[in-house]
Amino acid sequence: MTRYQHLATLLAQRIEQGLWKSGEKLPSVRQLSTEHGVSISTVQQAYQVLENLQLIIPQPRSGYFVAPRKAQPPVPAMSHPVQRPVDVTQWDEITTLLDNNQDKSIVALSSGSPDLSQPTLKPLWRELSRLVQHNLDTVLGYDGMAGKVELREQIARLMVDSGTQASADDIVITSGCQGALSAALLAVCQPGDIVAVESPSFYGTMQMLRGYGIKAIEIPTDSSLGISIEALELALEQWPIKGIILVPNCNNPLGFIMPDARKRAIVSLAQRHDIVIFEDDIYGELANDYPRPRTIKSFDIDGRVLLCSSFSKTLAPGLRVGWIVPGRYLNRVLHAKYAAMGTNVPATQLAVAAFIRDGHYTRHVRRMRRVYQQNMENWTCWVRQYFPDGICVTRPEGSFLLWVELPEQVDMVCVSRRLAKLKIQVAPGSLFSASGKYRNCLRINCAQPLTETNREALHQIGNVVYDALEEANALTPPKAPA
Amino acid sequence: MTRYQHLATLLAQRIEQGLWKSGEKLPSVRQLSTEHGVSISTVQQAYQVLENLQLIIPQPRSGYFVAPRKAQPPVPAMSHPVQRPVDVTQWDEITTLLDNNQDKSIVALSSGSPDLSQPTLKPLWRELSRLVQHNLDTVLGYDGMAGKVELREQIARLMVDSGTQASADDIVITSGCQGALSAALLAVCQPGDIVAVESPSFYGTMQMLRGYGIKAIEIPTDSSLGISIEALELALEQWPIKGIILVPNCNNPLGFIMPDARKRAIVSLAQRHDIVIFEDDIYGELANDYPRPRTIKSFDIDGRVLLCSSFSKTLAPGLRVGWIVPGRYLNRVLHAKYAAMGTNVPATQLAVAAFIRDGHYTRHVRRMRRVYQQNMENWTCWVRQYFPDGICVTRPEGSFLLWVELPEQVDMVCVSRRLAKLKIQVAPGSLFSASGKYRNCLRINCAQPLTETNREALHQIGNVVYDALEEANALTPPKAPA
Ligand SMILES: Cc1ncc(COP(=O)(O)O)c(C=O)c1O
Ligand SMILES: Cc1ncc(COP(=O)(O)O)c(C=O)c1O
Repeated sequence: MTRYQHLATLLAQRIEQGLWKSGEKLPSVRQLSTEHGVSISTVQQAYQVLENLQLIIPQPRSGYFVAPRKAQPPVPAMSHPVQRPVDVTQWDEITTLLDNNQDKSIVALSSGSPDLSQPTLKPLWRELSRLVQHNLDTVLGYDGMAGKVELREQIARLMVDSGTQASADDIVITSGCQGALSAALLAVCQPGDIVAVESPSFYGTMQMLRGYGIKAIEIPTDSSLGISIEALELALEQWPIKGIILVPNCNNPLGFIMPDARKRAIVSLAQRHDIVIFEDDIYGELANDYPRPRTIKSFDIDGRVLLCSSFSKTLAPGLRVGWIVPGRYLNRVLHAKYAAMGTNVPATQLAVAAFIRDGHYTRHVRRMRRVYQQNMENWTCWVRQYFPDGICVTRPEGSFLLWVELPEQVDMVCVSRRLAKLKIQVAPGSLFSASGKYRNCLRINCAQPLTETNREALHQIGNVVYDALEEANALTPPKAPA
Repeated sequence: MTRYQHLATLLAQRIEQGLWKSGEKLPSVRQLSTEHGVSISTVQQAYQVLENLQLIIPQPRSGYFVAPRKAQPPVPAMSHPVQRPVDVTQWDEITTLLDNNQDKSIVALSSGSPDLSQPTLKPLWRELSRLVQHNLDTVLGYDGMAGKVELREQIARLMVDSGTQASADDIVITSGCQGALSAALLAVCQPGDIVAVESPSFYGTMQMLRGYGIKAIEIPTDSSLGISIEALELALEQWPIKGIILVPNCNNPLGFIMPDARKRAIVSLAQRHDIVIFEDDIYGELANDYPRPRTIKSFDIDGRVLLCSSFSKTLAPGLRVGWIVPGRYLNRVLHAKYAAMGTNVPATQLAVAAFIRDGHYTRHVRRMRRVYQQNMENWTCWVRQYFPDGICVTRPEGSFLLWVELPEQVDMVCVSRRLAKLKIQVAPGSLFSASGKYRNCLRINCAQPLTETNREALHQIGNVVYDALEEANALTPPKAPA
């Protein structure tokens, strides 16, 4: 970020936080220049950015004023998906989405990738390069079934922070969190089984259900508190549900952290109905607040929670290093992993183990929590600026994903096709529903700082959404007076 | 290899090839020293090795003589497995096997690992290290669904040698050949389906069948010509078989190369019965003879052959780079791959792509073909020396695996337990049968040169087998005279 961008971000935040009220006069260029120790032209450039964003308004001869503020948009209400098991659809949309991720000329706000440019990641690559040069024997050969013990020991240590007690022997390394969830499902479920999911929920897991011939039942989910325990209980009474998949910490896509009381309640519900819990903690370490939230697994007493995670969000997805703590399903998970892909790459495992051991991991994650929290605030502010009224936006408690609910009439699947032509990619909400609900929603990746490219993309998204809304309204005849 | 080991190997081969007959006098130490341009003591050391191996016998004052030779053992006869679909067992035995691979103090003749110590592999690790230092962006992020196009292009080029026509777009990168086979099965089969396999056949694939709830029917297989087409046809008439898994080139464990006429016949049989062929070509590039044998896929005309392979045997298993050419099942294979493990590690893919592009791959494989052929001859000769009479041994046409059939009475599962106490691990034949047949067989990995450690291990295996045979014979009362 250049100096003026930095200053613009800072000022935007202050406006956001209400330090200067709507209509209030801002400090003069000279004042800010002295206060921040930057040149006059830097301040002028920063003010120009804010003016472009319609955050401030210039008044000839008297300086800059805070623009009339839009009210903070509300969070989305509890979801209301169909209450019966369905086959997962949406595969074709997902292939398009994932394939375009490889085209560098596309602004991929749809991706689930973290920020990979931070200097605190460097020791990881140094370590990998060192291993490849000096530890060839281990790096070349077949890995053991459960993965490298050096890494499993470090993961066991890290998990203490989430209240999760597990030794290296309780952990199985997998190819990312996807590999962990896949082994978990394969170990527990049969084709034709029913599994409950949050709604909306991560498309990758739902496609896995489809791959294994498992039906999904989507459970109403609150954007601040998580899955509705009441709705889940009703579903459990009505259907022979085998298990439930939950992302309780910094949920994808809604960003909530399930309160501990609810985590406890879910465990006892699972016990009463004898179902298993597939817990996906992939974003748990990226919670805004420290210490990090507990896992559901930490409340598990009879081994029915299969905890899945990976370093794809905290470090880098290209490592493909994930893990599972499968509780009572250890042997079956080992078999499922072996069946699906054999063993893992030893090199990336050993590099991560050393990175954690030497303290680099804690340092990096501490930094990223701050960075992402900051980014999300900025992005939220820009979304509010560029998008029409009447939207709902989540207030994520961690991670780097924002979920925006647009007025009912907007079809984000169509919008995203238009955006694709502009080389902008967003994830339409329908991907996050087994049956293609949430067509009026989108998920935005806020892992990157708000560069000019990203801001411009967001602006264009807003414009296309405005157009779509207008077209939709033109098509809907106004209600006849009663 | 030291100079004297080299000479010993050479002399052993000449004896093997019948250059000097049983009982014939060998050249004097001085003669050999002049002939090979080595010192007297080198020749003496070489003769000492051969004496230890009981290949030659010293006669005081008159030199060395070729020891009385055992006849070359015959190859195993056509196998006769049960002719009905069964659930795959043997999982517990396999966990023990794979876990012990990690213990460096064990002589793991059971492993499927290639020789990783060859200098021609070096450029691969240099490339990987370079990538990690200079191409971070690509190496850190999520890979595309099908894998790196740079690699797929190189694989397409290589496949021309096997008569296989495929473009980069027809290829999907997977986590090793296991990942390829797994995606193939998941794309084509449902639980409860029946799949035919060679008998004996690779345990990893059979465990996959178990993982996906698929039944195996084992088809009689000849150790020189491959699966019995007649037996397969009978099975197809009798059972609703969905597909067949074949390792037609340098078969694991039997080492045969299926003649082209049979490959063609299998394809037309598959067409007539509308089944798919899962072709596993993982050892195809390691055939003794050049040019390498054709794939079954090269005879495929309607996309019903799913060709699976990897660099685990030609380069190194720790890369976890495999691929599949899924023919008409491309979209379903992509889904299955995504469901089971998401995407792959980009770094190892790109390193392999550069290794092939720069000509290092061809050089390495050419070398390994020679090295393995040589090793196999030596190992075979030693097996004959140390094992009891009445054994059958395969004559592999490539790769580095030897299959030994012992007299019926010998139980290799028990023998391997005894050997485990001596820190020697062999793969008992029962792992290679869905129902635990072939308990009197074992597979030996001959990828390594015959070092003193390996020779000693082989000697000990022979001793334990001798003991087991004696015990078994003592238990069986001699047949009463008629
Ligand atoms: C909730 C959730 N689970 C699992 C995954 C897959 O993670 P990995 O890349 O480690 O396989 C993702 C990635 O986007 C995710 O958001
Ligand atoms: C015939 C055969 N297929 C597949 C595999 C698995 O290969 P990979 O390590 O590439 O997954 C092996 C490995 O031993 C094998 O022998």
